[in-house]
Amino acid sequence: MPETLLPDSLVVRGGGGGRIFLIVLDGLGGLPDRDTGRTELEAADTPHLDVLAARSSLGMLIPVTPGVTPGSGPGHLALFGYDPVQYQIGRGILSALGVGFELTPGDVAARLNLATLDAEGRVTDRRAGRPRDSEARRVVEKLARSLQAPQGVQVILRHEKEHRAVLILRGEGLQADLGDTDPQSTGVPPLPVTARSPDSLRTAEILQSVLDQARSILAEEPSMSGILARGIDRYHGLPGFQERYGLRAAAIARYPMYRGVARLVGMDVPGIPDTDTDAVSMLARAHRDYDFCFFHYKATDARGEDGSFDAKVEAIEAADALVGDIAELEPDVLIVTGDHSTPASYAAHSWHSVPVLLASHWARPTSSSFGERSCRGGDLGTFEGWHLMTLALAHAGRLEKFGA
Amino acid sequence: MPETLLPDSLVVRGGGGGRIFLIVLDGLGGLPDRDTGRTELEAADTPHLDVLAARSSLGMLIPVTPGVTPGSGPGHLALFGYDPVQYQIGRGILSALGVGFELTPGDVAARLNLATLDAEGRVTDRRAGRPRDSEARRVVEKLARSLQAPQGVQVILRHEKEHRAVLILRGEGLQADLGDTDPQSTGVPPLPVTARSPDSLRTAEILQSVLDQARSILAEEPSMSGILARGIDRYHGLPGFQERYGLRAAAIARYPMYRGVARLVGMDVPGIPDTDTDAVSMLARAHRDYDFCFFHYKATDARGEDGSFDAKVEAIEAADALVGDIAELEPDVLIVTGDHSTPASYAAHSWHSVPVLLASHWARPTSSSFGERSCRGGDLGTFEGWHLMTLALAHAGRLEKFGA
Repeated sequence: MPETLLPDSLVVRGGGGGRIFLIVLDGLGGLPDRDTGRTELEAADTPHLDVLAARSSLGMLIPVTPGVTPGSGPGHLALFGYDPVQYQIGRGILSALGVGFELTPGDVAARLNLATLDAEGRVTDRRAGRPRDSEARRVVEKLARSLQAPQGVQVILRHEKEHRAVLILRGEGLQADLGDTDPQSTGVPPLPVTARSPDSLRTAEILQSVLDQARSILAEEPSMSGILARGIDRYHGLPGFQERYGLRAAAIARYPMYRGVARLVGMDVPGIPDTDTDAVSMLARAHRDYDFCFFHYKATDARGEDGSFDAKVEAIEAADALVGDIAELEPDVLIVTGDHSTPASYAAHSWHSVPVLLASHWARPTSSSFGERSCRGGDLGTFEGWHLMTLALAHAGRLEKFGA
Repeated sequence: MPETLLPDSLVVRGGGGGRIFLIVLDGLGGLPDRDTGRTELEAADTPHLDVLAARSSLGMLIPVTPGVTPGSGPGHLALFGYDPVQYQIGRGILSALGVGFELTPGDVAARLNLATLDAEGRVTDRRAGRPRDSEARRVVEKLARSLQAPQGVQVILRHEKEHRAVLILRGEGLQADLGDTDPQSTGVPPLPVTARSPDSLRTAEILQSVLDQARSILAEEPSMSGILARGIDRYHGLPGFQERYGLRAAAIARYPMYRGVARLVGMDVPGIPDTDTDAVSMLARAHRDYDFCFFHYKATDARGEDGSFDAKVEAIEAADALVGDIAELEPDVLIVTGDHSTPASYAAHSWHSVPVLLASHWARPTSSSFGERSCRGGDLGTFEGWHLMTLALAHAGRLEKFGA
């Protein structure tokens, strides 16, 4: 995998360099409206983004590889310069980050489904009829109260959404080379926890004992009578921004998932903003202490998932005003892009490429508007997103030449 | 590593094919002038290149990966079809090639810094105050005269530029899995030579004895009182053009670095031209004996490094006249590109993509001008440079179909 080796053979220049801002408008990319032929971003009135575009290299960013729709975790890892195919993070870890749980290195996390089991212990509904959040939360809390933690291990449960929850095991020497217990079909019992390597045997026993207890505790529940575990992974962090890029980095994000992924790569989290305006103020206060600031904006994705073209256009226009304020902080390199597309007509994350602008003194501008059409003709071409960080470092004067 | 395997799984067609010329205008790519919005290439009057463009597939070439600025070695390896991330060449080898030293397989080369050491042997200046070339050359010659070569080994020293020099060890059974002695900081002594594998132990001892002698010989020098070695590598050549592509290849280049990299991949060097006009005459005489001719032109890079937009424009216009003469030799495939960008405003190698034209009977022309703007919209898109050779072979009718 030579291309994934590259970041490790890059040499970061001593003595620092310019300051980089990465603004992620979540789910930014869209699909053209049938009548006008314009995407949400092309339809939006974005004077500040257009001014930036005119001093930017533009391009289209492929989140993972062509045709692959990323979740928020891999989508952001790619923007942070980690090839998401190489750096795969278990669903358990992503779920824990998503509910805002502060993982500690060595924690083992599993994604749980509340499921319906019949009297013989066979799965009849893997999602327990998609319970309401309040009902599911009651069951998770009941479990958390009644579970006896095995010796030397802390067991933490958090409800996520509907039938989804997350289980964290914390203790010395836990490993996570474990198979799923979710059989991925009905009419059969959950699989036993299996260790795929000898050093995970003890953790397999611990997890099995927790799942066995859960079965007894939930025996009387009519629908949520069992749990299925999958995506079991151990939290160890990644080679972080300081080590990899020599960057002191900060994340400003209103939602826990994005702060969590940022912490995974060693970013500081200077605070938890309540509103987007708060977030900009926080960035304005914090940015002088950092070389790199990641700023996350959620509404573009949320309105795209709602399926409303016009509401997504409004969310983009609201983001444009924030971008205008952020640009006044005058970073040396200012990037605006998304972690993936969420076209309103598709009403979900999609695989489509995402417009990106990179404003810097060394840019090669090609257009004074920011949109799919202009970015497609931009200087950066269409490229896999995990190269974005290398471009950012180059424009910030932070990379040594490759080869003599 | 699928994409780096590709050239090895390509099958070259028996019975030969068309003749290919690769003209490298070093550092060709540029940045737009603030007033006109035009790059050096776009501002230059290039009638011959424009005529070629009109019968070419155009594109933008990424020298290594996005954001990575290559040195001349990796830049040319990529144009010759070798993924520069996979085929990394030590600085010692590149330095030896750069000073025109003819390496033999098995030679071990190290990049040297002349450095200042204090009375306790600690490094106080890793570059010995950047000495003038004449002063540094005197010290390197003194070293070369006084060093006693260890038994069975030849020790060769060449001054490069300022504090930089190169050391070559020649002898039977030398290996180069050796760590640097440059500590990369001051206030500490040079690191001892360490073997990173058992079969390099003997070479480590040999190199250490040379460095120890150097310390004594230079003891009385006020500033250049020690040497630091790094980028130690063994010269073994690469799978060459004949083996890899079935091509008899020749290199016409005025400067040693480029002849050296060409020899590394098995190209012949029919002579050393004194002027660019000489170089064209040499190509005219030699080309019928070869399937592939690499022609190197330096002034575009040199004027870019000087930081003069207008001088780079003139260098491009001078190259255009040469290209006109070369085109009259009527190769089947004529490629013009650069190994990287050297924008005059940046005054150094940069990471920006580079315009490329590939003139052939099978081209898909899109424009009758050659420049960043037209190439960005060209048929080849924006692509990593090491794919260029495959394109050249295809247009020359030299590749079999991939798969049945």
